[in-house]
Amino acid sequence: MNLANSVLLTDLYQLTMLQTYHAERMRETAVFELFARRLPSEREFLLATGLEQALDYLENLRFATEELDWLADHGGFSPQFVASLEDFRFTGSVHALPEGTAFFANEPILRVVAPLPEAQLVESRLINLLHYQTLIASKAARCVLAAPGKLLVDFGMRRAHGAEAALFAARAAYLAGFAGSATVLAGMRFDIPVFGTMAHSLIQAHDREEDAFEHFAAAQPGNVVLLLDTYDTETAARKLVALAPHLRERGIQIRGVRIDSGDLAEHARRVRGILDAGGLAQVTILASGDLDEYRLRELLTAGAPIDGFGIGTRLDASTDAPTLDLVYKLQEYAGLPRRKRSEGKATWPGRKQIYRQRTANGALTGDCLGLEDMPRTGEPLLVKVMEHGHRLAPSEPLDIIRDRVRMQLAALPPALRAGHGEPPPYPVEIAPELRELATRLDQKIH
Amino acid sequence: MNLANSVLLTDLYQLTMLQTYHAERMRETAVFELFARRLPSEREFLLATGLEQALDYLENLRFATEELDWLADHGGFSPQFVASLEDFRFTGSVHALPEGTAFFANEPILRVVAPLPEAQLVESRLINLLHYQTLIASKAARCVLAAPGKLLVDFGMRRAHGAEAALFAARAAYLAGFAGSATVLAGMRFDIPVFGTMAHSLIQAHDREEDAFEHFAAAQPGNVVLLLDTYDTETAARKLVALAPHLRERGIQIRGVRIDSGDLAEHARRVRGILDAGGLAQVTILASGDLDEYRLRELLTAGAPIDGFGIGTRLDASTDAPTLDLVYKLQEYAGLPRRKRSEGKATWPGRKQIYRQRTANGALTGDCLGLEDMPRTGEPLLVKVMEHGHRLAPSEPLDIIRDRVRMQLAALPPALRAGHGEPPPYPVEIAPELRELATRLDQKIH
Repeated sequence: MNLANSVLLTDLYQLTMLQTYHAERMRETAVFELFARRLPSEREFLLATGLEQALDYLENLRFATEELDWLADHGGFSPQFVASLEDFRFTGSVHALPEGTAFFANEPILRVVAPLPEAQLVESRLINLLHYQTLIASKAARCVLAAPGKLLVDFGMRRAHGAEAALFAARAAYLAGFAGSATVLAGMRFDIPVFGTMAHSLIQAHDREEDAFEHFAAAQPGNVVLLLDTYDTETAARKLVALAPHLRERGIQIRGVRIDSGDLAEHARRVRGILDAGGLAQVTILASGDLDEYRLRELLTAGAPIDGFGIGTRLDASTDAPTLDLVYKLQEYAGLPRRKRSEGKATWPGRKQIYRQRTANGALTGDCLGLEDMPRTGEPLLVKVMEHGHRLAPSEPLDIIRDRVRMQLAALPPALRAGHGEPPPYPVEIAPELRELATRLDQKIH
Repeated sequence: MNLANSVLLTDLYQLTMLQTYHAERMRETAVFELFARRLPSEREFLLATGLEQALDYLENLRFATEELDWLADHGGFSPQFVASLEDFRFTGSVHALPEGTAFFANEPILRVVAPLPEAQLVESRLINLLHYQTLIASKAARCVLAAPGKLLVDFGMRRAHGAEAALFAARAAYLAGFAGSATVLAGMRFDIPVFGTMAHSLIQAHDREEDAFEHFAAAQPGNVVLLLDTYDTETAARKLVALAPHLRERGIQIRGVRIDSGDLAEHARRVRGILDAGGLAQVTILASGDLDEYRLRELLTAGAPIDGFGIGTRLDASTDAPTLDLVYKLQEYAGLPRRKRSEGKATWPGRKQIYRQRTANGALTGDCLGLEDMPRTGEPLLVKVMEHGHRLAPSEPLDIIRDRVRMQLAALPPALRAGHGEPPPYPVEIAPELRELATRLDQKIH
């Protein structure tokens, strides 16, 4: 069994609620919407990502025999209820933002319309799938905006939170504009370009650093990127200059070097000088080590001659904002709008649509959050992607999504792209009919 | 193919280095150790966790045919090298800290001794596996110390970083002393107790809140925990008091209530008053919503009458310290100690052992980090757990590990358990012979 696809990858309360719905025959149509209650203070926008995996999950949702057996034995569930799960399928429809679409607080990125038990059970894993990729794509986009024209590579697998996070981080970062990932499986699974250099251990396993460089270059002639900082960065750069002519005689070009510690800007400047003076002006410099968009800006502002960056831990764990307040809330049941009024957590009821306004040249000027059946000016963003439990279109190629992200980032208000200061929040107007509906519901519920 | 078990869940540079080792026939014995370079400023100790999954990974490591095909097609790898991977197995030995052992900066929690290519390839996934569970167990232990005697449940699946993180967070939190998790699959996979109540959507799907309570109680008579804050917390508590006699007539007891928003301490006090006055003194109060060890301390210091806590997002993403500086470094190759000297990232060479000192009553007083072959006073902590690629003992039952954690936490210096202030770091002495070895190596390397 592939654990990641298990229907039991959910919260127990979904099943206890399903047992109640089963007992009460509550199978009317429910409408749930998934949205961010607020943005982290370190984020000016988010990029909706992970829809591909969410739709895959919904299409393939079913209980395996061993899962039903476990539920039956586990206690708390009646045999009739467990038996009812045998034919459980997701038969509903889904509206969603196309992957890579920028969105803001309160704007639904996914709407599920399905019989209540189906729409309920999927809550936990839908959030889990959309939360992580959205988190990473949004973080990666900030890195892309901070380092225009630079080669950015996801190096974060080892400190991503588990296997799935590592894989999804590679995908999300690539969608946001990274050149690729060091994670090999992401290459095989998603056809994402994979990048790799060498680690300190290869150098350390040789008695002489120059032997390590030569052996590596000979074994990997098409991709020679050498790591300079195992002992002393500038000494290593000079060894490389001495080695280059011998490699050239053997038809091997050095493509790049990597610096992984110390003052990266200062080392890059010195190494650039040594390489240029040694006739290796074409050799590129990559940097890595605790990087993120803040460090990228510092390094580039300081004029560090660095051509590419490996961004690891702080990307894959989104360390400055490691979670988003993404929730999935009931907005309508049995034809009636519904509203939760919990303190600080009240929701906007009904089936909503985001209407996005642009200038003539495409720049975003603001959104209106309204009801789907009361269209307003602007481009409606949520589109139907699933009906009767089946997708309406094949998976989107990653390059299409990358293009969409590129256009989204270019169209954002400049202050939101700057990544520093405290820009005024992007304007999202709540349509009058939505406010009126909420007020009407509040008066009704006691 | 189960992606989480794929040998390609590694960084590309491991494979480029393996191609070099293959070309140069570098198959001598390598010794790598895995340790934390430093602790996050928010952590006074860490708990080593995830060994079970790490050993599983090593025992089952092999290349699938489709993986070899992909590598052959991917470019950059020679046919001879790819063919050499067909019989790739991990044949080495492993020393490790038993799961649940407290450890500190620079102390190895795992040592791999194997032919260089085997020890190299496994770096990325070994860190990935040990990093996340160690991160979560260490965070969860702080919650346990902050709320002695309270019921703590992992509620974090939805905002854990992917499927594997959700599962492993449940395991790590349970090992650290949590009562269980809301994640159903963790129950099936690890035999961890699972807990669940109800969500706001069940209440919202009913026209009257009291109907929702009654339906849920009737469908789930053995586990009635009702959520109070969908509309108004105290009003809901009074509805529950009114409902309780009717439920009692049907043989149904209300076990607990949950509060998920607003001022949790104040609501808990008012609800406790309403329940007690209504003859429901035995009904327990659970709280949830953005909780962590800091909030637990505040609530309990304020005397909030709360019996249990659901701890979600901030646990599963360890939001105040979402990563650890865990690394895996070559310490010996072909019989010679090795040392990396990168600025700020230098390592202690050789095969090391942690010697832990205690008082007569078991309280920890300090560790000595020395060389394995020069024993010092204190209890040696690293034990051999794998030889020739096979485990030396069956998996440890989770309850044994939980007991170990309980004893570790009780034996920590009180200042380290307090979870606030800035306690003096736990004393870890570097043995003189280790310092001498490092100095000797520094003089040798140019």
